[in-house]
Amino acid sequence: MENTNQYNLDFLFHPNSIALVGITTTEPQHWTRTFLDGLIEFEFDHPFYLVNPKDGEIKGHKVYTSLKDVPGNIDHVIGLVNAQLAVNLVEECAEKGVRVIHFCTAGFSETGEESRIKLESELAEAARRKGIRIIGPNCMGIYCPQTRVSFSAAFPRESGPVGVISQSGGNSIYLVRQAALRGVRFSKVISYGNACDINENDLLEYLADDVDTKIIALYIEGIKDGKRFRRALEKAAKQKTVILLKGGTTEGGARAVAGHTASLAGNRATWDALSRQLGIISVRTLEEMIDVLVTLLFLPLPKGRNALLFGAGGGASVLIADEFESRGLRVPPIPPELIAQLREYTPIAGNILRNPVDYSQAMFNTEGVIKTLAILSGWEGADFLVMFVRIGQFTASRISNGQLKNLLMSRFPIKQDQFPKPVAMVIEPSIIPQEAEAILAAINSSISSGMPVYYSFAAAANAINLVLDHAEKRSKKS
Amino acid sequence: MENTNQYNLDFLFHPNSIALVGITTTEPQHWTRTFLDGLIEFEFDHPFYLVNPKDGEIKGHKVYTSLKDVPGNIDHVIGLVNAQLAVNLVEECAEKGVRVIHFCTAGFSETGEESRIKLESELAEAARRKGIRIIGPNCMGIYCPQTRVSFSAAFPRESGPVGVISQSGGNSIYLVRQAALRGVRFSKVISYGNACDINENDLLEYLADDVDTKIIALYIEGIKDGKRFRRALEKAAKQKTVILLKGGTTEGGARAVAGHTASLAGNRATWDALSRQLGIISVRTLEEMIDVLVTLLFLPLPKGRNALLFGAGGGASVLIADEFESRGLRVPPIPPELIAQLREYTPIAGNILRNPVDYSQAMFNTEGVIKTLAILSGWEGADFLVMFVRIGQFTASRISNGQLKNLLMSRFPIKQDQFPKPVAMVIEPSIIPQEAEAILAAINSSISSGMPVYYSFAAAANAINLVLDHAEKRSKKS
Repeated sequence: MENTNQYNLDFLFHPNSIALVGITTTEPQHWTRTFLDGLIEFEFDHPFYLVNPKDGEIKGHKVYTSLKDVPGNIDHVIGLVNAQLAVNLVEECAEKGVRVIHFCTAGFSETGEESRIKLESELAEAARRKGIRIIGPNCMGIYCPQTRVSFSAAFPRESGPVGVISQSGGNSIYLVRQAALRGVRFSKVISYGNACDINENDLLEYLADDVDTKIIALYIEGIKDGKRFRRALEKAAKQKTVILLKGGTTEGGARAVAGHTASLAGNRATWDALSRQLGIISVRTLEEMIDVLVTLLFLPLPKGRNALLFGAGGGASVLIADEFESRGLRVPPIPPELIAQLREYTPIAGNILRNPVDYSQAMFNTEGVIKTLAILSGWEGADFLVMFVRIGQFTASRISNGQLKNLLMSRFPIKQDQFPKPVAMVIEPSIIPQEAEAILAAINSSISSGMPVYYSFAAAANAINLVLDHAEKRSKKS
Repeated sequence: MENTNQYNLDFLFHPNSIALVGITTTEPQHWTRTFLDGLIEFEFDHPFYLVNPKDGEIKGHKVYTSLKDVPGNIDHVIGLVNAQLAVNLVEECAEKGVRVIHFCTAGFSETGEESRIKLESELAEAARRKGIRIIGPNCMGIYCPQTRVSFSAAFPRESGPVGVISQSGGNSIYLVRQAALRGVRFSKVISYGNACDINENDLLEYLADDVDTKIIALYIEGIKDGKRFRRALEKAAKQKTVILLKGGTTEGGARAVAGHTASLAGNRATWDALSRQLGIISVRTLEEMIDVLVTLLFLPLPKGRNALLFGAGGGASVLIADEFESRGLRVPPIPPELIAQLREYTPIAGNILRNPVDYSQAMFNTEGVIKTLAILSGWEGADFLVMFVRIGQFTASRISNGQLKNLLMSRFPIKQDQFPKPVAMVIEPSIIPQEAEAILAAINSSISSGMPVYYSFAAAANAINLVLDHAEKRSKKS
């Protein structure tokens, strides 16, 4: 039971059949339905069964009144029953030969109430006795596109190199959903909640050896065995790139952790020191984690810290240069001979030929933009290029939606793999729905061109700096 | 000429007639058209005239071939002509008795080219000789809703208490546009560019005395007379709340400043020290400036730093608590007797009754939310309340657009002025257009209820902390 090598946990991600026990028959929008939606949308290609004491049918699928009535074998159960019925479900699962139950059900130790803490112990004990592994309780479980298991129908169907271990269900949804919008794809995602059986160590050891996973992103609230976690992190960091977000590093955050997944937290300084020591990228927010993922996946590693910034707006140019330089990157001046070359065909008024290059007036001339990028990409002074779009600085009267789309799309004349220098894009979002449409198109076009997209100057500078720091540390070690 | 007391600059904002000289007759989307669009949309209620050597008509308005052909008097000119024609325009304006020319025209000292620097000196000299004041060149000029002058047709028609002095045109547009979306309204906004005549000191001294302006927001790239600027800042900070964003505080940023408005910059440390000394709120980005404006305008000043956080999501609760506590605010635990009160009607599974209050399952029950807010608002342990919505953590299969709207709107059962504690909202935006629509409705509803809206946990915590810091410093001084 305590053996946690890869072979042993692989079955979590490769169910041969699934039963959703406790799915609601009456409320189509109930949270228990999200797992069925996932299986249907992902076209899970093994048998799956629905169980609820009230029989009937949901979306054409028969509902069995109990697990034992299900005709076929079941090796994977998603437990959606009330917390009080959890132990009972373990007993029923044992009779069916189930190997793992993911309990989404909440109402255990995270409530802080004694009777509920006891209930969780009883659940863990019952599972141990019966030789059944538990994911959770109080979590979203498994997303594994390769085997067509997903806790959201909205997640990408394609696999990718990022493995995620998240104690929080909501944060795992946020991470996958928001990162997917920026082109990130995943190997295996596990939301593991209260960890009454399978915990962060088991999962980290597993993903460290998983051939489909190149980058491991961790959202951890508390750990139950510090020494083992340290060993697991160390091992993982040697084999993969590891990004860690530790929740609950302040007093108030730690109290929230105690209420959320009933774990012990630890202060910021401890976690930062550990991350430095082990060569892990430490982040403080999910947004920062996504920025780092996007950088690792889409920005070819720059040879140095010299950025060439290119966009529209004199004021925006000043602010982006400040953001980059105050975050450990450099914005070196372009030499006069290059400026002279650009000046030959670039109007003097409304364009500023320095670094950042401000093409306020020349941006609509795509041919000129391409020529300029070709000239600048040959300049040895720059290690990478960042193009930026700050939609909020345009007066609405001058930019129609169609024009906005054209303007945004004109920023993408280049593709990452056909360009001699790494290229990143900063595209600021808009809360105005019509603009959001043009911006989403631009973001998607940029992603298809193989470019990392960031939502702010600060986010781009911060993530690129973190990834360069990490690469420098790595190269010193080896 | 050098006298710059309030009376003397008031005419900048109260034109009796305006001529747009150099407006294009042929390209409807040309940048010169934005000023005409502004006058039309705002229904400028004095005569205005269009001038271009090619005569004709634009949107029903006659185009005069030269300024001297204009039948009426003109006291205010917006100069859109080529830089080379600027001095000539000054001469023509003198004959018409014009008092001020706002030169939007670029292509002067900001290019860094000697001949262009000389052109700007000649322009300033010609204006001085003729007794005409210059705003600019290389800027957007004046937005004053009270007198119906605006450089964007999209700006709010209503006035408000915020005065803005921005060296950059793009940044002034960004600031007004983005802040307006969050309910901020303005008294007078001036984008002053290269400042060959009227400069930041003149404008700051003016706004310090302006009765319509309660808060002054400054975006400054470089200053030409440091001592006078310091005096002006000191005076303004005594009478108003002043927020300062200094662009060009890094080497790269300073080089960009030199290219943008041909000014001298200064390093971060100098500006931070000065701000502390004078009791000014110093910010590093336009977003932060807007967050502070929103806080000053809509959050009644909390009596202390204790926040009660309220939203959905256990993981989100941990992260928002960390953000608040790591930024100088406190998230104190709710006493057991209050928790017991809430527990009477709040389901135990999926809701966590701590601080943050996680109403993941109970959020749809608006009645319960109202009851809970009423109970919690009576708790002396909290000085203010922050409600948060993290849309990215919902699985799309569970939330339809209609539901999303309902869910978001259910967060607004209270109005700032009818609630016993200050209330703030964190509503995270979405780049998905359909979601953006529901979110915009929620933001607008929140603003109508008198609440400050922030786009991230970090932004809210940071701005509230800055405003509390500022208030504490003030109260110590007095």
